[in-house]
Amino acid sequence: MINIAVVGFGYWGPNLVRNFANTPDCKVRYIVEKDERQYTKIKNLYPGVEAVTNYGQVINDQEVDAIVIATPVYTHFQLASQALSHGKHVLLEKPMTGSVDEALKLISIAEKNDRVLMVDHTYLYTSAVKKIKQLVDDGIIGRIQYIDSTRINLGLFQRDVNVLWDLAPHDISICDYLMDEKPLAVQAVGVSHTENGIENIAYLTLFYPENRIAHFNCSWISPVKIRHMLIGGDEKMIVFNDLETTEKIRIYDKGYKLIPEDDRSDVLIDYRVGDIMIPKIPQTEALSDMAKDFVAAVSKGKKPISDFNSGLFVVSILEAASESIKNDGKKIKLA
Amino acid sequence: MINIAVVGFGYWGPNLVRNFANTPDCKVRYIVEKDERQYTKIKNLYPGVEAVTNYGQVINDQEVDAIVIATPVYTHFQLASQALSHGKHVLLEKPMTGSVDEALKLISIAEKNDRVLMVDHTYLYTSAVKKIKQLVDDGIIGRIQYIDSTRINLGLFQRDVNVLWDLAPHDISICDYLMDEKPLAVQAVGVSHTENGIENIAYLTLFYPENRIAHFNCSWISPVKIRHMLIGGDEKMIVFNDLETTEKIRIYDKGYKLIPEDDRSDVLIDYRVGDIMIPKIPQTEALSDMAKDFVAAVSKGKKPISDFNSGLFVVSILEAASESIKNDGKKIKLA
Amino acid sequence: MINIAVVGFGYWGPNLVRNFANTPDCKVRYIVEKDERQYTKIKNLYPGVEAVTNYGQVINDQEVDAIVIATPVYTHFQLASQALSHGKHVLLEKPMTGSVDEALKLISIAEKNDRVLMVDHTYLYTSAVKKIKQLVDDGIIGRIQYIDSTRINLGLFQRDVNVLWDLAPHDISICDYLMDEKPLAVQAVGVSHTENGIENIAYLTLFYPENRIAHFNCSWISPVKIRHMLIGGDEKMIVFNDLETTEKIRIYDKGYKLIPEDDRSDVLIDYRVGDIMIPKIPQTEALSDMAKDFVAAVSKGKKPISDFNSGLFVVSILEAASESIKNDGKKIKLA
Amino acid sequence: MINIAVVGFGYWGPNLVRNFANTPDCKVRYIVEKDERQYTKIKNLYPGVEAVTNYGQVINDQEVDAIVIATPVYTHFQLASQALSHGKHVLLEKPMTGSVDEALKLISIAEKNDRVLMVDHTYLYTSAVKKIKQLVDDGIIGRIQYIDSTRINLGLFQRDVNVLWDLAPHDISICDYLMDEKPLAVQAVGVSHTENGIENIAYLTLFYPENRIAHFNCSWISPVKIRHMLIGGDEKMIVFNDLETTEKIRIYDKGYKLIPEDDRSDVLIDYRVGDIMIPKIPQTEALSDMAKDFVAAVSKGKKPISDFNSGLFVVSILEAASESIKNDGKKIKLA
Repeated sequence: MINIAVVGFGYWGPNLVRNFANTPDCKVRYIVEKDERQYTKIKNLYPGVEAVTNYGQVINDQEVDAIVIATPVYTHFQLASQALSHGKHVLLEKPMTGSVDEALKLISIAEKNDRVLMVDHTYLYTSAVKKIKQLVDDGIIGRIQYIDSTRINLGLFQRDVNVLWDLAPHDISICDYLMDEKPLAVQAVGVSHTENGIENIAYLTLFYPENRIAHFNCSWISPVKIRHMLIGGDEKMIVFNDLETTEKIRIYDKGYKLIPEDDRSDVLIDYRVGDIMIPKIPQTEALSDMAKDFVAAVSKGKKPISDFNSGLFVVSILEAASESIKNDGKKIKLA
Repeated sequence: MINIAVVGFGYWGPNLVRNFANTPDCKVRYIVEKDERQYTKIKNLYPGVEAVTNYGQVINDQEVDAIVIATPVYTHFQLASQALSHGKHVLLEKPMTGSVDEALKLISIAEKNDRVLMVDHTYLYTSAVKKIKQLVDDGIIGRIQYIDSTRINLGLFQRDVNVLWDLAPHDISICDYLMDEKPLAVQAVGVSHTENGIENIAYLTLFYPENRIAHFNCSWISPVKIRHMLIGGDEKMIVFNDLETTEKIRIYDKGYKLIPEDDRSDVLIDYRVGDIMIPKIPQTEALSDMAKDFVAAVSKGKKPISDFNSGLFVVSILEAASESIKNDGKKIKLA
Repeated sequence: MINIAVVGFGYWGPNLVRNFANTPDCKVRYIVEKDERQYTKIKNLYPGVEAVTNYGQVINDQEVDAIVIATPVYTHFQLASQALSHGKHVLLEKPMTGSVDEALKLISIAEKNDRVLMVDHTYLYTSAVKKIKQLVDDGIIGRIQYIDSTRINLGLFQRDVNVLWDLAPHDISICDYLMDEKPLAVQAVGVSHTENGIENIAYLTLFYPENRIAHFNCSWISPVKIRHMLIGGDEKMIVFNDLETTEKIRIYDKGYKLIPEDDRSDVLIDYRVGDIMIPKIPQTEALSDMAKDFVAAVSKGKKPISDFNSGLFVVSILEAASESIKNDGKKIKLA
Repeated sequence: MINIAVVGFGYWGPNLVRNFANTPDCKVRYIVEKDERQYTKIKNLYPGVEAVTNYGQVINDQEVDAIVIATPVYTHFQLASQALSHGKHVLLEKPMTGSVDEALKLISIAEKNDRVLMVDHTYLYTSAVKKIKQLVDDGIIGRIQYIDSTRINLGLFQRDVNVLWDLAPHDISICDYLMDEKPLAVQAVGVSHTENGIENIAYLTLFYPENRIAHFNCSWISPVKIRHMLIGGDEKMIVFNDLETTEKIRIYDKGYKLIPEDDRSDVLIDYRVGDIMIPKIPQTEALSDMAKDFVAAVSKGKKPISDFNSGLFVVSILEAASESIKNDGKKIKLA
């Protein structure tokens, strides 16, 4: 049994508390929240949980094993580094930190203190992404040639981060989970239609070796909600439509093959169009599996799916994307 | 009554012949086609049309008023300049030419000879685009903030031009038709998965003044066919789905407004979500209206919708896009 | 403030408890449930509610004002008549009773005791049906000529009632809410694919004066879930697709008109096809509004939307439908 | 090489002429059409075909082998019996005749003269229906439990036949093609909203042995076009959506099984939900295959798919349906 504290009871925090409260071998001990108007609600829903304002009290409590942080990005580094230094395991909301530098420092502190540092990339725990991962690992779709994602709607304008830092962590973490290598470079463009200059439309491209490519279209100002990802393998192609309830994944037996030089007459390409398969995928709550993964990491030393390397990768791409946007869409090489 | 000759009876040529054959005040006199295996078919379908291989014969025939050119892009300049110099009016398939330089020379020859030079941007003649144009001109959607288009499918790999030169002319010509100013710069990225190095996936961005933006996603290797364009105005937003048969256009009464500084409490943005309207649009064949527009330009001096300026604009964007792709996605300023 | 008891904490009961618990001027005092394994869950979720097995205790408690009954249909009459006789107001799950005879007796007892007797036809409280009702009442769609509903999926086979008694109450109650008169006759057919002989596919038709008609297609064994209703007025027509999240209602400006005798040449009918409108409808929980309607009926004497007449009507149609099925689809006249 | 004459060049006739003109071993010799305004069009499209008004001339021409009849239903019997008596093979548009009596007489004349008598049930020649037939014959979906079809839109009101005679032949012929036995009884209801009393909405049910059932929903006054058929087998279920362009058939691995008596605890039914398969089906023109089938029947004695038994079956169901409608929806037993 591990005791955890959840910091932040705003938009996402209540979901985390609900899921950790239902996770075996785990008890929510504290909720740290400045807005005391939430306390009655907390008391009604979770009579056994103590709501406090003082973060210091929590990280000094020897009975607390782990801290779950669901506060704005700019606070992540300070809250997490304090917790790790006090010997607590840490789970951070995405994106892990506001910079690569902060991410590297946190990882270093976690390793020095031998504590778990994990990030909540919830999408990696969805049945749909798990199924796609399995199809990729089993060689069903062949080698991925491209990933193309559209993630747009009339969304909540964030006040501190742009649309890429808000929406693209989903795409970047999925992309990294599925690809067997790292991108060489990043390129991004974006525009803002508000006076604060924070981009509300942005396009992000990752360049992988051998002309493999990933492109993410993110917007807060689309009239229609679209959550649509194409994953093009050289054997089969997948369409992942997250707005479908029971048919999120479609596997297309479609492809093209170059015709070898000596066979060539008029055409260069041989096309193939076959059946479409819609696999049944279980209806589970991804956040519940993420919570279990964190608890298993803390109590059994299991390596989590969404580990700090995944967190670091996302932040490094976002940082490079911001640099690219600032430099007129210049292609930014990655280390 | 004007006499025309159609050059090229391959993929698109038959559609042009069929439509011009049904256009009033117009007669198809010749079809110029090298592949003589097509001649029987031509004779059966159009007993009154003469199929020939010799282009010289056609442009020297005094009874021919106009030449319609549906051959590969790299042949456009030579065929068109010859025709114009022989006093013929010219209609060119899209894209008008393979370079801005060629386009400018053609325009100059056309003006010197006082001949019509027009390009077949068929989409501008669809009922859907006409309706959108009317909605924009009537001020219904307000000022356009962005255009975002996805035009992908498992398409025919072209042998001489990349996916942008093949597919983006549709988007670029529509964009230019709807916007009230020209873009300042162009940026593009693309990759090739064939050994000839011709890009089969590419992303093109146009930057307009005041953070207005247009983005086009073009691919020949998508498992699903998508023809989807968002046009985001500051009053209303339009979704144009060209694969719908009777519901191509949806008008969303959706938007957001910045909240003035002094009213601000917690939120920056005020959202609005209202009804959706699907206007009835007539089912007409766009190519037929394009043919009529050309005939009216030739016989009555009417200024065509898809004139050489539209053609030049498309080519200038494509040329800048190619330069951007070659230079690692560098932003290319437009003159 | 009124005190209520909810009887039955199986499939639907928990939804009723949750909604009444959140309704102002109302307190859930008891849950009557035989299965004591549910008691821990009840205690955790609703610490202030007493879970009991003894119905007698509840209807004898003077502090209880109203009884909400969510038990199998065959128990409705006995439970409700006892409650009414003890001076309690009663809300019954749909269908109100298992026979017209029972329904009439309950109404008589309710009237004699001057108590509210209401039935939970939840659909009448959805934003979609409210919007349709308003469109009908405002004369927007003209006079309804037909209603055609398909309500099918791979559903839970009931053990005591057939697919019509399970699914058709939704359609019948909506139909009665929208139509301005009562049907003259009922006709139904159905088949069973299980050895208990309970129909799992059935088709029900209501015949109204002047050839107005309503047809309901109900099935528990469809591979796809469909909740699709057409409402054809002589001015406009409505499509109500309950599986859509934000676009449940579409209003078609479509129609036909008979051409008067003397104008007739070749055609009899003049068709009209205009725009389509998708009105914005608020996202509310229907059950919450139903709960409020019951509380208002009890505490303020407000006439509820889903009153006992609506309940009686549904039962009378179902009873006639059963008679029709038993008699080889004979048309059953209604009183 | 066989010579044919097509009678009727109205709505469907031109499609028949076009397809027979492109069928090998077959020549269209005559078009019989009263409306001489069509003659110019015929001459332009088919210079080698003779357009005539005199049917007698055609059936007396010894060089004519077969007559294709695309005239209103009430003329079918007379035209076909004359042709058969003159030794011509006959293809009739659906429905074959206006009564069972006429159909039986035609069959008798055809057999006596040893001529082919076939009916154009075009749907049986679509790739989609062929694929479904193959899935049924291969035992993939198990035994069919039910067929449920919706065939509605704002359609052309016919002047001589009701909506069932117009639309249901498609459903009835498909149903008969897929089922391995004949229905025992027919039941139908319908209403008319025009003063001529011809039904524009009708519902038709076929009752097969062992509670197998087929239900057809036909309407000329729906705001939306639907062509949707469910075929429920006891192993798998098929959804056939004819409005889809490339995904007309979906195979659902869904089902339910009765739990044997002795295993029963609480539940009666065991549900199964698996993958969905969308088979690739070739894009062919059904009418072309139908024309080839007729030519093969005439020249090689091949038994056609859509033979006179199929034609007779459709007419017998329609006749019984009309009787049922006239008798208040009475169930009509079939011989």
